[in-house]
Amino acid sequence: MLERIDVTVASKHYPIYIGKDLLNQSHLIIQHLSARQIMIVTNSSVAPYYLSKLQAQLHDYQCDTLILPDGEAYKTLETLATIFTHLIEHRHHRDTTLIALGGGVIGDLTGFAAACYMRGVDYLQIPTTLLAQVDAAIGGKTAVNHPQAKNLIGAFYQPNAVIIDVTTLSSLPEREFKAGLAEVIKYGLIADATFFNWLELHIDNILARDPATLTHLIKVCCQIKANLVAQDERDKGLRRLLNLGHTFAHALETGLGYGCYLHGEAVAVGLCLAAEVSQLLSNFPYSDILRIKQLIAKIGLPIALPNTLSIKQLLSLMTNDKKAKLSNLTLILLKSIGLAYCEHNVDYQWLYNYLKCK
Amino acid sequence: MLERIDVTVASKHYPIYIGKDLLNQSHLIIQHLSARQIMIVTNSSVAPYYLSKLQAQLHDYQCDTLILPDGEAYKTLETLATIFTHLIEHRHHRDTTLIALGGGVIGDLTGFAAACYMRGVDYLQIPTTLLAQVDAAIGGKTAVNHPQAKNLIGAFYQPNAVIIDVTTLSSLPEREFKAGLAEVIKYGLIADATFFNWLELHIDNILARDPATLTHLIKVCCQIKANLVAQDERDKGLRRLLNLGHTFAHALETGLGYGCYLHGEAVAVGLCLAAEVSQLLSNFPYSDILRIKQLIAKIGLPIALPNTLSIKQLLSLMTNDKKAKLSNLTLILLKSIGLAYCEHNVDYQWLYNYLKCK
Repeated sequence: MLERIDVTVASKHYPIYIGKDLLNQSHLIIQHLSARQIMIVTNSSVAPYYLSKLQAQLHDYQCDTLILPDGEAYKTLETLATIFTHLIEHRHHRDTTLIALGGGVIGDLTGFAAACYMRGVDYLQIPTTLLAQVDAAIGGKTAVNHPQAKNLIGAFYQPNAVIIDVTTLSSLPEREFKAGLAEVIKYGLIADATFFNWLELHIDNILARDPATLTHLIKVCCQIKANLVAQDERDKGLRRLLNLGHTFAHALETGLGYGCYLHGEAVAVGLCLAAEVSQLLSNFPYSDILRIKQLIAKIGLPIALPNTLSIKQLLSLMTNDKKAKLSNLTLILLKSIGLAYCEHNVDYQWLYNYLKCK
Repeated sequence: MLERIDVTVASKHYPIYIGKDLLNQSHLIIQHLSARQIMIVTNSSVAPYYLSKLQAQLHDYQCDTLILPDGEAYKTLETLATIFTHLIEHRHHRDTTLIALGGGVIGDLTGFAAACYMRGVDYLQIPTTLLAQVDAAIGGKTAVNHPQAKNLIGAFYQPNAVIIDVTTLSSLPEREFKAGLAEVIKYGLIADATFFNWLELHIDNILARDPATLTHLIKVCCQIKANLVAQDERDKGLRRLLNLGHTFAHALETGLGYGCYLHGEAVAVGLCLAAEVSQLLSNFPYSDILRIKQLIAKIGLPIALPNTLSIKQLLSLMTNDKKAKLSNLTLILLKSIGLAYCEHNVDYQWLYNYLKCK
């Protein structure tokens, strides 16, 4: 069965397809290509599984390929330059289409390359990790990292389509699959208490990667994100709720060095920290903190800061985050499960003292 | 006297101010700042003349400065990375405003940095060269060069305002001033025969840099460009007329190495080549080719390819240009002075043979 969700923003209207074996359905891809040139950007972990399958659908096209090394450490301006060089050496023109085949790093890099190459060419997202399928590939946020801050350099740039083949999750390493579930939990926390309950009830089926269960899970997440993005493409209001746990997580990733924690692992810790801060600032129930930590722990994700990074280091890095203002912090917090809000002017010193004593 | 032209595109509406001593009129600048943070980006040639004057208007702000080396050779991804590092080290947030104080290179770099930093912050253009005042700073095209193609990597990203202080032209080196006049001539050729006549009549006053003459000249150019940009922000139709001579010019700059010819010098040659091709493809009068060459020569700009670059090398580089399609070229040509059009499918081999025999 093929599910379809539509994303509507000021600049564009495009579909997200979700289903099994979509990589074999060439019409889904071909109808979204602008001309005869394609550049598939993927990485060395994904390519052996899915590249030839994708290429087989595109034999009528000038289909070039760039296989990058795998990992967040390569989400840099330098890798971006490699993509541009590859495009120009293969003489790609304004009507080329880039295809991102891989996880969030490949999607962010490829999307940003598409945004900048000749001031903007078309691209498709074919996410192959859970994290990318429920989050990174949806909504047009593209970026590379700066050594001092994650996603610092980027663009809002929407794809022509997002094609989510849930079959690709079968090859996803256990650690990455679990990391993706942190973002899934986040959707329940910010917007859908019923979905959070459903996650608690179906966690065993989810961890067993039952295809029907995963299809439902991805569809709910994409719909929540599409709704928020439609109301606020440029992240100036409602969309910021999606950053629940992320101000902590970005600082954590920067502090530990990119590539140490997976993004979802850092988000898991961030969700727990956000819930704890919410307890004091908005009466978020202690029992719900426990529910969140139980679900995260059951998955096997971390629920607290590692010993190698102090609260002080973490907070210092947080003031570099895009969401931070000059002296105080803005944090996304929870009123209840399913209801997030934006708390401005969280005092840096107060937060330090509070988290230090936890 | 303060002249004002408004630019309206889908994404934004903003003013261009033109007049004498505008750098001393702090209200013009301050009304377009989003918050308390500013980063002035300028270069080592412009800074000694105008930086302290600009800073003096902004003493109530966190006003940081980045002085880059001067020249097209620095319009690279590496310099862009330097700007990002400077912004993050001075803890600039989403509501910062960048100010481009300089010529086209500074404007393109700063505008593209603003487009990408935290996925988009505000910026102002304060162009100090004739070329930037009549062309580069108007219309929101930002970019850096790739070693193999000029302006290959960039964004359409509009400033909050453009502030053109014609007084700054008094310090402009003779060679740069003259190079800027190539773009001025281009406006007459593509859209305004009366303006072309006016240029022929007033060329002595222009070369003497009479302020009233220059104010009129800049205003006409900005109005023509604003009209075209309003109809076609993303360069998919009418705006391409602005590329008259530029497909040749970009290839010429790439072939000779950035920094050898000034952009306007390459455009001067490009205008002559475009006029010659127009003669055969659209009956552009030979007498008008002579008028164009006479005006360009009177300014002291080149009217033919230098001996160091062959027609063959030039055409090979042109197929890498953003405006080029796979096998044939698209060129902007002239039907008459004041009337440009887009000629698709110019055969590569035909063009080679034709230009070779000229």
